[in-house]
Amino acid sequence: MDNFIFDNATKIYFGKDQIKALPSLLQIFGKNVLLVYGGGSIKRSGLYDSIHSLLHDFNVVECANVEPNPHHTTVQRGADLCKEHDVDVILAVGGGSVIDAAKVMGAGAHYDGHIWDLVMDASKIKEVVPLVTVLTLSGTGSEMNRGSVITNTDLNIKKGTGGQNSLPYASIIDPTYMMTLPAIQTAAGAIDAFSHALENYFKADNDTFMQDAISEAVMKAMIKYAPIALKEPHNYNARANLAWASTLALNGLTGVGKPGPWAVHAIEHELSAYHDVTHGLGLGILIPVWLGFILEEELMPIFVRYGVNVWGIDPKQDDSSIAYQAIDKTIEFFKSLNAPLTLGEVNIDSTHFEAMAKSAVKLGRLTQHLFPLDENDVMMILNQCL
Amino acid sequence: MDNFIFDNATKIYFGKDQIKALPSLLQIFGKNVLLVYGGGSIKRSGLYDSIHSLLHDFNVVECANVEPNPHHTTVQRGADLCKEHDVDVILAVGGGSVIDAAKVMGAGAHYDGHIWDLVMDASKIKEVVPLVTVLTLSGTGSEMNRGSVITNTDLNIKKGTGGQNSLPYASIIDPTYMMTLPAIQTAAGAIDAFSHALENYFKADNDTFMQDAISEAVMKAMIKYAPIALKEPHNYNARANLAWASTLALNGLTGVGKPGPWAVHAIEHELSAYHDVTHGLGLGILIPVWLGFILEEELMPIFVRYGVNVWGIDPKQDDSSIAYQAIDKTIEFFKSLNAPLTLGEVNIDSTHFEAMAKSAVKLGRLTQHLFPLDENDVMMILNQCL
Repeated sequence: MDNFIFDNATKIYFGKDQIKALPSLLQIFGKNVLLVYGGGSIKRSGLYDSIHSLLHDFNVVECANVEPNPHHTTVQRGADLCKEHDVDVILAVGGGSVIDAAKVMGAGAHYDGHIWDLVMDASKIKEVVPLVTVLTLSGTGSEMNRGSVITNTDLNIKKGTGGQNSLPYASIIDPTYMMTLPAIQTAAGAIDAFSHALENYFKADNDTFMQDAISEAVMKAMIKYAPIALKEPHNYNARANLAWASTLALNGLTGVGKPGPWAVHAIEHELSAYHDVTHGLGLGILIPVWLGFILEEELMPIFVRYGVNVWGIDPKQDDSSIAYQAIDKTIEFFKSLNAPLTLGEVNIDSTHFEAMAKSAVKLGRLTQHLFPLDENDVMMILNQCL
Repeated sequence: MDNFIFDNATKIYFGKDQIKALPSLLQIFGKNVLLVYGGGSIKRSGLYDSIHSLLHDFNVVECANVEPNPHHTTVQRGADLCKEHDVDVILAVGGGSVIDAAKVMGAGAHYDGHIWDLVMDASKIKEVVPLVTVLTLSGTGSEMNRGSVITNTDLNIKKGTGGQNSLPYASIIDPTYMMTLPAIQTAAGAIDAFSHALENYFKADNDTFMQDAISEAVMKAMIKYAPIALKEPHNYNARANLAWASTLALNGLTGVGKPGPWAVHAIEHELSAYHDVTHGLGLGILIPVWLGFILEEELMPIFVRYGVNVWGIDPKQDDSSIAYQAIDKTIEFFKSLNAPLTLGEVNIDSTHFEAMAKSAVKLGRLTQHLFPLDENDVMMILNQCL
């Protein structure tokens, strides 16, 4: 196990009606609130009205229409609103895109240059506007970490960033908000959380028992509860277990003490940068192909653990048989969620593969992975996904 | 899953030589440090000298000789030192007893009444002196939670307490410090951490997938690594995995969303209150007997999960057979650590059982457990432990 610092102070208010805590959480910072959200779903669900009614004593400025794969121009708009209205605290209501955008808005409010600087160089993120979040779609884990992924459509770059102060102060996770999600978003969120555990699971093999056990538990939670949530969207315990497992997948617990970068996310960010595909669905297409690509002798112990502990495959078989079965089961799982399995299904062809591969290797430091990938490798993976 | 708030901001500095971070962690609060520690082990190991050398710029006042099952008089002494020397930050160097005592010392420094009030009524704990810890013995989890257990030898009461502000600001966990522990302390620490996971595992059955999976992982980590640490005391990865699993066992992750009190700890506190037995060893004697006592139909699903997931017992057997095998394996495990299995082995007879049972039921709210226990039940458990 490598040395690490675990430092995650986000307060999680989990469960039905925890939204009631909102005024007391916000007033710590002041009365001027920037309410950040996406499309109209929080209006249709009634959450928008509930929040306004809870915040009748606050001065609420709105930053609506944060898009999936949020654009740096949207983030700039939010940062400008913070400056203009002397915002004391940001309230992000939505999924990962809204929360990711809100984190960088809060950093931009204390930065005089161009917002994109804060994405290209995370060390430029210093002071931030405090952030409280209300999660409406679980998967990204953004509600309990410092990370944001922002897209620059002018440059076709989608990149992660985050500073020491980028952690939300508090996040409200009410599983009932997820009961009305479109099925494909439930599936995409589950695959996203699954992928976070999987990436940390495969990024190093250095005797990190709890980290790997928690990754296995996250993946098993997705396997168990995502099909239930799709079949019974109002099943509270299914939604609750999906949500809590998704939060734990990326709050540090699965990754501390394990060195190295991630692989699949770096490649997926290129898909989203060029084609605006839903992040979780892009991951679902890439994961099985990537697993097949890196299936070599030196990673076999991880594959065997994955097969036996996550998929319950009988360990009394030869290693490579376990590994291939594990990949097959991964594909079957994604398929059972009605997730696309090829790039063709999401209308992506090979046009930009070369540029994507180059950028993925560079931005994702893919040559430093436990199983290093160069541009040719990424091209091969992308082509196999067609 | 019940509603919960997860709120744990302790910064963990984990790994070799993380002690270097100490000056920067302390100076946030000021120059006047109260160094709290136990006996001479940190002097023999050289840690005492390392710390003094790192803190040459600080004004260090010492509160030594904190005993196992720390006494309220010791805590009062520490609180008085804080007041007398205008202490800015407490540095606790030791295991759970030292850290537990230090937490209440810091609360006592801001309290004008008798220190025991803060144990009998946790709501009296308000402001505290900030606390940084250096862990030298893993097991209690005190390095990343708000709890303390303090003993009043005049009243024969050992009781838990803790306030919202009782969380350590930061804890340094360097597994190399644990390499020179006496074998019985390694065993006691492992049983203690095992028991924290077990108590949370058995306290409710309300579809808390991640919580229970993390409990299972903690117990499996103890089963895997405690024997290695006993055989190879300098095995870094064994010490590291024991330490990190112990921290996660009691930082909230295994218990959130699961209502109800613990049972075994409440009874063990009575053993320690009357006989000053090592906490982990007392737990090891009680756990198997308690498990046998509560083995009834309604708890069978938990017993079966425990047997299959923690002990790897073949699920294709009838439930009660799995449950009995699981208890047997628990006993074998404690025995393999050379832990005592009867009260006779730690020189405890039945003299105080009646008073103990009465106090355990009251202080531990044992009638509110998923498997309620009254005074007669506790008497029966204690008698079976003889």
